[in-house]
Amino acid sequence: MLELYHYWSSVCSVKARIALAEKGLDWTSHHVDIFAGDQLTPEYLALNPNAVVPTLVHDGRPIIESTVIIEYLDEVFPDPPLTPRDPYDRALMRIFVKNGGDDLLQFIGLTSIDRYIGPKLRQRWKGHEADLEAFINRKPGNRAMQLRAVRGQLTREEINAAYARIDVALDRMEKMLTQRGGPWLIGDYSLADIAVAPHMHRLERLGEAKRWEQKRPAVAKWYERLNARPAIQKAFSFLPPDGKGYEEVGLAAAPAST
Amino acid sequence: MLELYHYWSSVCSVKARIALAEKGLDWTSHHVDIFAGDQLTPEYLALNPNAVVPTLVHDGRPIIESTVIIEYLDEVFPDPPLTPRDPYDRALMRIFVKNGGDDLLQFIGLTSIDRYIGPKLRQRWKGHEADLEAFINRKPGNRAMQLRAVRGQLTREEINAAYARIDVALDRMEKMLTQRGGPWLIGDYSLADIAVAPHMHRLERLGEAKRWEQKRPAVAKWYERLNARPAIQKAFSFLPPDGKGYEEVGLAAAPAST
Repeated sequence: MLELYHYWSSVCSVKARIALAEKGLDWTSHHVDIFAGDQLTPEYLALNPNAVVPTLVHDGRPIIESTVIIEYLDEVFPDPPLTPRDPYDRALMRIFVKNGGDDLLQFIGLTSIDRYIGPKLRQRWKGHEADLEAFINRKPGNRAMQLRAVRGQLTREEINAAYARIDVALDRMEKMLTQRGGPWLIGDYSLADIAVAPHMHRLERLGEAKRWEQKRPAVAKWYERLNARPAIQKAFSFLPPDGKGYEEVGLAAAPAST
Repeated sequence: MLELYHYWSSVCSVKARIALAEKGLDWTSHHVDIFAGDQLTPEYLALNPNAVVPTLVHDGRPIIESTVIIEYLDEVFPDPPLTPRDPYDRALMRIFVKNGGDDLLQFIGLTSIDRYIGPKLRQRWKGHEADLEAFINRKPGNRAMQLRAVRGQLTREEINAAYARIDVALDRMEKMLTQRGGPWLIGDYSLADIAVAPHMHRLERLGEAKRWEQKRPAVAKWYERLNARPAIQKAFSFLPPDGKGYEEVGLAAAPAST
């Protein structure tokens, strides 16, 4: 029995859904509306003290952190395998998995908030800005950067620094694909591809696909292959209960592959 | 042939040294003076494009990220094993490993800079503050929070939020040790213990051992057991080439166990 607590457009939730789809697993959906504060209820905090999505519950036992969830799924449901056998290749894979869980998450998150989520939130909470900030401050952790992003206060230097980190990640992908010859990041399809896929999709919706379409041809071809996978299409097609998709959150640009 | 590029007091470097010591492995040391900018040379960036320590080089092949390095060492040198066999226990272990590589690193890092490293740097670079900021800005990534910490500009709210996250991690440790009965976080000694050990040591040197000595008795006993391990003592006893230790960086408080 597999249950997933997730939010339809959250990059980390998409990551878990891709792994579930690649394994052909059935799961029960619990949609957590993170913009309504569902992640701050005592019930959810008991499952996930970090107050973030996703959380996988397998036979009643919770597993948090999308990077951990996808490794767990691959170990418990080994067919098809999504981890290379060679230890050095596994290390290379885990660098991508980690990168998807920290740098990419943090910096694409910041640019997402700055360009789309922030303006949307300010529009929705117009006249109640203090309530919006109080809501953000209820979330655990250091929210200083997030608050500044929501307020539209990030400087050009901060935005540039975020994209510089994203470019480092894209360069690593281009180098891996070129040196190893593909077709996937580590050779065979693996958790490395799954870990970065949702971030690439978000970048595309932020209008940043030019970063690979114009400059990193191996990544561009990899991304086409990625979007042709049924599991990827299935994971991205999940919609919230009201059926309102990417247009609603200001991410209207359609992926190039659809 | 194992080589480690590391800095003596860096928490992530200590983590790699603990894993090497637990496995009884010999390795060649390359000390990277991160305060002198050694991590920004083209030679080092070719090994580690993130410009951070440590980097492990095994038979000529570099492995970056301390969380990835310790899993790699455990896979390649399986004796003694440092990973549980049960997949759910492995997931629990990886949550601690991840936590040591993000939340704990980020928030203990901020409080370290605010209380010790920042004042020391301001003293050393007195009259050359612009050069200090230029040096910090040469490092990749979004350095806004780090710059504010170096300037002593973090607010009480930001510091409190950082300690709140640290407390969440300590609570998780207390809960694991209590529920599972120890003696180590997941039961047997594992990468989970290694991943958080350097952070606990840093917290102690920041004068924050009261967080477990007064409130979390299972963590307090675990920390005593930890410090009794020869590999832990060996990893923490590594000194820089000039032989100047913790006193030099303003972290003079001796661990309770020594």
